[in-house]
Amino acid sequence: MNDRLDPELVRRVVRAALEEDGAFNDVTTLATVPPGQAGRGVFLAKDAGVLAGLPLVQAAFEAVDPGIRLRPLLRDGARLEPGSRIATVEGPLAPILSAERVALNFLQRLSGVATATRALVDAIAGLPARVVDTRKTTPGLRALERYAVRVGGGHNHRFNLADGVLIKDNHLAAARSRGLGVREAVAAARAAAPHTLRVEVEVTSFEEAEEAVAAGADVILLDNMDPAGMARCVKMIDGRALTEASGGVTLANVRAIAESGVDIISSGSVTHSARALDVSLEVEPS
Amino acid sequence: MNDRLDPELVRRVVRAALEEDGAFNDVTTLATVPPGQAGRGVFLAKDAGVLAGLPLVQAAFEAVDPGIRLRPLLRDGARLEPGSRIATVEGPLAPILSAERVALNFLQRLSGVATATRALVDAIAGLPARVVDTRKTTPGLRALERYAVRVGGGHNHRFNLADGVLIKDNHLAAARSRGLGVREAVAAARAAAPHTLRVEVEVTSFEEAEEAVAAGADVILLDNMDPAGMARCVKMIDGRALTEASGGVTLANVRAIAESGVDIISSGSVTHSARALDVSLEVEPS
Amino acid sequence: MNDRLDPELVRRVVRAALEEDGAFNDVTTLATVPPGQAGRGVFLAKDAGVLAGLPLVQAAFEAVDPGIRLRPLLRDGARLEPGSRIATVEGPLAPILSAERVALNFLQRLSGVATATRALVDAIAGLPARVVDTRKTTPGLRALERYAVRVGGGHNHRFNLADGVLIKDNHLAAARSRGLGVREAVAAARAAAPHTLRVEVEVTSFEEAEEAVAAGADVILLDNMDPAGMARCVKMIDGRALTEASGGVTLANVRAIAESGVDIISSGSVTHSARALDVSLEVEPS
Amino acid sequence: MNDRLDPELVRRVVRAALEEDGAFNDVTTLATVPPGQAGRGVFLAKDAGVLAGLPLVQAAFEAVDPGIRLRPLLRDGARLEPGSRIATVEGPLAPILSAERVALNFLQRLSGVATATRALVDAIAGLPARVVDTRKTTPGLRALERYAVRVGGGHNHRFNLADGVLIKDNHLAAARSRGLGVREAVAAARAAAPHTLRVEVEVTSFEEAEEAVAAGADVILLDNMDPAGMARCVKMIDGRALTEASGGVTLANVRAIAESGVDIISSGSVTHSARALDVSLEVEPS
Amino acid sequence: MNDRLDPELVRRVVRAALEEDGAFNDVTTLATVPPGQAGRGVFLAKDAGVLAGLPLVQAAFEAVDPGIRLRPLLRDGARLEPGSRIATVEGPLAPILSAERVALNFLQRLSGVATATRALVDAIAGLPARVVDTRKTTPGLRALERYAVRVGGGHNHRFNLADGVLIKDNHLAAARSRGLGVREAVAAARAAAPHTLRVEVEVTSFEEAEEAVAAGADVILLDNMDPAGMARCVKMIDGRALTEASGGVTLANVRAIAESGVDIISSGSVTHSARALDVSLEVEPS
Amino acid sequence: MNDRLDPELVRRVVRAALEEDGAFNDVTTLATVPPGQAGRGVFLAKDAGVLAGLPLVQAAFEAVDPGIRLRPLLRDGARLEPGSRIATVEGPLAPILSAERVALNFLQRLSGVATATRALVDAIAGLPARVVDTRKTTPGLRALERYAVRVGGGHNHRFNLADGVLIKDNHLAAARSRGLGVREAVAAARAAAPHTLRVEVEVTSFEEAEEAVAAGADVILLDNMDPAGMARCVKMIDGRALTEASGGVTLANVRAIAESGVDIISSGSVTHSARALDVSLEVEPS
Repeated sequence: MNDRLDPELVRRVVRAALEEDGAFNDVTTLATVPPGQAGRGVFLAKDAGVLAGLPLVQAAFEAVDPGIRLRPLLRDGARLEPGSRIATVEGPLAPILSAERVALNFLQRLSGVATATRALVDAIAGLPARVVDTRKTTPGLRALERYAVRVGGGHNHRFNLADGVLIKDNHLAAARSRGLGVREAVAAARAAAPHTLRVEVEVTSFEEAEEAVAAGADVILLDNMDPAGMARCVKMIDGRALTEASGGVTLANVRAIAESGVDIISSGSVTHSARALDVSLEVEPS
Repeated sequence: MNDRLDPELVRRVVRAALEEDGAFNDVTTLATVPPGQAGRGVFLAKDAGVLAGLPLVQAAFEAVDPGIRLRPLLRDGARLEPGSRIATVEGPLAPILSAERVALNFLQRLSGVATATRALVDAIAGLPARVVDTRKTTPGLRALERYAVRVGGGHNHRFNLADGVLIKDNHLAAARSRGLGVREAVAAARAAAPHTLRVEVEVTSFEEAEEAVAAGADVILLDNMDPAGMARCVKMIDGRALTEASGGVTLANVRAIAESGVDIISSGSVTHSARALDVSLEVEPS
Repeated sequence: MNDRLDPELVRRVVRAALEEDGAFNDVTTLATVPPGQAGRGVFLAKDAGVLAGLPLVQAAFEAVDPGIRLRPLLRDGARLEPGSRIATVEGPLAPILSAERVALNFLQRLSGVATATRALVDAIAGLPARVVDTRKTTPGLRALERYAVRVGGGHNHRFNLADGVLIKDNHLAAARSRGLGVREAVAAARAAAPHTLRVEVEVTSFEEAEEAVAAGADVILLDNMDPAGMARCVKMIDGRALTEASGGVTLANVRAIAESGVDIISSGSVTHSARALDVSLEVEPS
Repeated sequence: MNDRLDPELVRRVVRAALEEDGAFNDVTTLATVPPGQAGRGVFLAKDAGVLAGLPLVQAAFEAVDPGIRLRPLLRDGARLEPGSRIATVEGPLAPILSAERVALNFLQRLSGVATATRALVDAIAGLPARVVDTRKTTPGLRALERYAVRVGGGHNHRFNLADGVLIKDNHLAAARSRGLGVREAVAAARAAAPHTLRVEVEVTSFEEAEEAVAAGADVILLDNMDPAGMARCVKMIDGRALTEASGGVTLANVRAIAESGVDIISSGSVTHSARALDVSLEVEPS
Repeated sequence: MNDRLDPELVRRVVRAALEEDGAFNDVTTLATVPPGQAGRGVFLAKDAGVLAGLPLVQAAFEAVDPGIRLRPLLRDGARLEPGSRIATVEGPLAPILSAERVALNFLQRLSGVATATRALVDAIAGLPARVVDTRKTTPGLRALERYAVRVGGGHNHRFNLADGVLIKDNHLAAARSRGLGVREAVAAARAAAPHTLRVEVEVTSFEEAEEAVAAGADVILLDNMDPAGMARCVKMIDGRALTEASGGVTLANVRAIAESGVDIISSGSVTHSARALDVSLEVEPS
Repeated sequence: MNDRLDPELVRRVVRAALEEDGAFNDVTTLATVPPGQAGRGVFLAKDAGVLAGLPLVQAAFEAVDPGIRLRPLLRDGARLEPGSRIATVEGPLAPILSAERVALNFLQRLSGVATATRALVDAIAGLPARVVDTRKTTPGLRALERYAVRVGGGHNHRFNLADGVLIKDNHLAAARSRGLGVREAVAAARAAAPHTLRVEVEVTSFEEAEEAVAAGADVILLDNMDPAGMARCVKMIDGRALTEASGGVTLANVRAIAESGVDIISSGSVTHSARALDVSLEVEPS
């Protein structure tokens, strides 16, 4: 796949982060590093993980000084070990120092997301299920974090509420309180949504899964079931709909979940609770 | 202290998050929940921790429908136990569902930051040091995360590069490569920076700490020293400058660090690696 | 369905239009109408058609003066005859005059889109096909024009390139030039796109339609076929995929197209070439 | 004249349209066209008309990929016949496909406006009147549509309410309800408006035209008069003011109107009801 | 005249100024003034002059806290003496202090412009000429400074390059270098500009003034002439065009200029070099 | 020091000013200067002073046409005499004329600020005090005016309320009304503000100065004292805090103030009441 981050979005997000960090008015660097002084540096991994975020590092340096040259030694998606050399940077020293923190903030966070995703993906190696993200992303950074999920070997769920239909427990409860059921909710979604969207329904029991299939759902989300319960549902559904496992997915249980035969496993923690990957920039003035 | 989040900033960040999430074009809810249907819900903690982010929850519901009423049962800063009731929400059901995820995304993240901060603060109870944040924050959310740090009992470091002077190793290396030392770097900072700013210098050894004090630094950042080394520096500095401990601060070592006598302990992990606190919204249509 | 226009989007678009029109610096009105003078007016249809756009009229007057009261006499979707009274407006005269043109520009354009859509929908009354829009909308106004299509009884196609998969002739040609076929293109789309999206494939012949069905397409777009050719494809597909007719749809041929049994009929002309519906505002100073 | 479209405005409008269309996240193209594949295409007219909008096509391709080369074969203002080759495009195929619809949406709409204008202008060939636009433009696109009017041989009326004085029936009614007349309204406008602006007055009868001239109006707008009535007014005015014909101008009557001797003929339909000109992009992967 | 400042523009400019001033993160006030403390204050003039800018003061307080009440004791345009009480403000003390500087910055600057304008206007009392501003305004504040000019009894020149035709020496030099003269330049302007605009021509000598009148200019700008030269031109022009005096206008010579019979006197110094009027806010906590 | 203006801020401010001035729709120039015509010009000082603002001039020409070449003959900070040649500009004539006014508006204003600052700085030559600006800057232009102050040899005070602690009379009055004094206010500021900020306290008498020093203030602002009073305070403080003189600073008294021994002298008039420096652009078409 042709994986592209919108370059204008990257520029905009990076520019906003640099302004937030006062990078264009870095009083310390302006006072202590003269304009003519050059420098070079290298980005080093200090933990094992998966690299993600080089386009943002590139954009951060471009934004502060077009004379800075970043030379990637690895690509997004590469496996990192402590000590892995990620990229070198060279040019006027002052703007390198002023942009360093923002570059690292993006790189560490996105590499953290990619690393957490890769761990789940590796844990189900050989099984057909795909690991996908959720809408539990950092406000303002969804497109970037979804990119990091892909870099880590995962797939993306719907981008947002506007481009996917997912009838959840609350929607069904709303329908029931008006005397309607899954069938009517699915029909309402089909009538209102563009024909280019599938209709997914969240269920919490075997009986609800039966109802959802009967109602013609294209995808059944099995919420917080144990692997055995999931396997029973998958068998009953028998290919009439896709199945998604959701809720409480961990490194410890993800393989068991995948072995239940579900098509999709979604995880919020890869975005909402990923630890930043430790990366440092070692600078050497010249 | 009069702790205030800029309400316009809150509105802007929340609005952007709602747009990012497609909340104003929630195809599922628009299809399955009629405009007239009302509902109510309660925000419940599912983990122990510290609450932070209610103003963002409030703003999220206001943005989608001014007819929704949020009634806080606790305040930001409250201790949460699994099952703690945080707030109730009541009004038209459809917009409540459309804004739910964004409200939770903010609440879980900021409560996670407050919880991680509070853990460090509690660990040094009775000692005079203050726990402060760093610039390792989520791009775009710095003001909010700093608020969460305060809610968790911490203090804030400088906001960004423009409003604090911190001469780091790279600045000193740049000076040295030009034949200058700490003294000249501090003098340059004093000459260039507004007189309202203190000058802080990062050191990695006892000898550098001596140099920095001699150069007239107002604050000495002791980088990655062990508690014994810090204590030795603190004793040598003897009140001539404030001292800040930085690098590798954990729950396990923070009390030992504080006992070294430093004035300030800074932690990046409370913002860059805090786990989201688990909170749910239980909705009941009516 | 709960049809909602994002009120913030409406405000933003209307505000931009008022600024574009210099409504806040209307030299003529400021010079000739004193602040104290009140007035009232009525919006009158001068052509037959379908009403769409009242929320924008409301927003235009609110933006220039919150003291203006708009009282709708009809709702969006109402049938208009020449002379139909649409709404009254009352309040300070000067801002009413300053906002008049912008209010009418939106109302006339959106009513034009709704009217054109309704004509197609009425022409296929009793048949199951749905009329949908395309991406041939006015830059900047897509959400509004899609709303007008719904108001006119139509449905919406995908919003944009990000939220629907439609493999068109150019994508297939690109695949073929690399030695691949429809099957591989569909598989690539399934692998890359969120599982919440259907995969639609554009075909121009019976043979291509067969290929697309065999490749597992969820929706087949029959491009520029005549009704007989469409009917043959529909029969062959036999419910294994949805069918969409596209290209050259007119009032004259839409019923024949619908009778071919297609599920969806898409029309670009309802947005790109709709005539503005003639509406006037008759004002009476007091 | 040096006809220039503000390049920053063009970039901004085009960028917004591309974002609206999801062009930077085109799931189909990203999935089915690899980054290395190149392609070329040609823009072909499918109807007769006048070309307008090439700068927007250029900007659309630049925005998605600076490596795309657009080579215009004609210039804005050129006459098109079905089959006319307008421009070629060459470069990486994926971004060409992602920007195609936005490029065409602008080109078809603006060429439609230029074509409608040119038809009116041609119809009065040899007569001194100028055809001008009105404020009945598409919200957000006024500057572009005015450009298309000029490209089609027309002229522009005032840009908006801030940069031209036009005392309309409602302003005069407001004055009359306060016991004042045309004379006082013209005087008020002269007193308030910058001295760089003429004062134009709308009249609906011979008597009002007499009043307006006596009041010292610089321009008289003859609203919805028949050609004979206009001719009578023009003769009476006798060069003491410019005259503008407005209301109900069609291809059928525009020559008769011009023959009445008016200086200016304004038409709203060239912007609010122009049909999009049919143009296609024929792409060939390589 | 109905003098209105666009309230949204006011809000936007004031909001930007408050953000620039860090008013939503006023560390001193947040630390030293508790949220519950109320206060009141009075705006006092410390110099003589003309008041302008109350809507911005109002907007500044509204932006920081809607609970603050501003009670104007005078209106924009009022004459101030040292000690004049302008307005009182009452409410929560902390936000009053945080917005004080921004409120004063606008009030002092705009009152300075109004005061400088009023001095020129008063100096020509009894003569028919109008004092107008120029485009030599503060970037970003033109609409506000033009308002202050009107408040001071002046009038406005064209807003900007887009809404007035003024053929200056450089335009004429450009024409001459191509072998053309004033006549051709005026004709070109008439052909290109909307018919709602007058054509003004800048001249520096009696002979050029003759040329400009012969070319049909509507307004003649007499640049840097002495009053006697102006009077000679005015007499020669004899009402065939308006006349504007420009260049080197001071309080000392403005009456002599006005006595030359010119219609308009333009002054750049009222905006580019006005001294801020001294105003203070005396606050009293309660 | 490495004095850098954020280039993106410069572009943004200049672009906004050009839009405000209608520079992209300059009807006069578009009508009278053909696209092919070239020209050159020179910026000439007409008054003595200090040059500031060349980066904005550069940005203004770049924004309208990248083909224009500006060649600085002097640098910001240079002394100007009447007739000093500042820079030449060469390229397409039309956009040079369209951007001229905006370029001059920035250059004249910033040079005015630099000139006023330089006069104060020169007046205290040989004395150790630094001249600093205040927050009495033009809304929207603070960063630029602070740059001009530095160019004129001055220093900057805190940027805004968020990045410096200054306890003023109103804050102290608020404290007193709650039964608290300077000591408690300083302690509250220390507790709430980042440790990177000094605490400055405003005093109006010798006694208050004593109190402030006793309270541990880092900087004492001596408000509106006469030089003798200042000298007495400086002697009493004896290096325990920095001292800042503020209020009523003029060219006439600034040397006497500096001789009192204060460290810092702040002046609002260098920004709020500086006269624009007279600069012209002499253009020559070719």
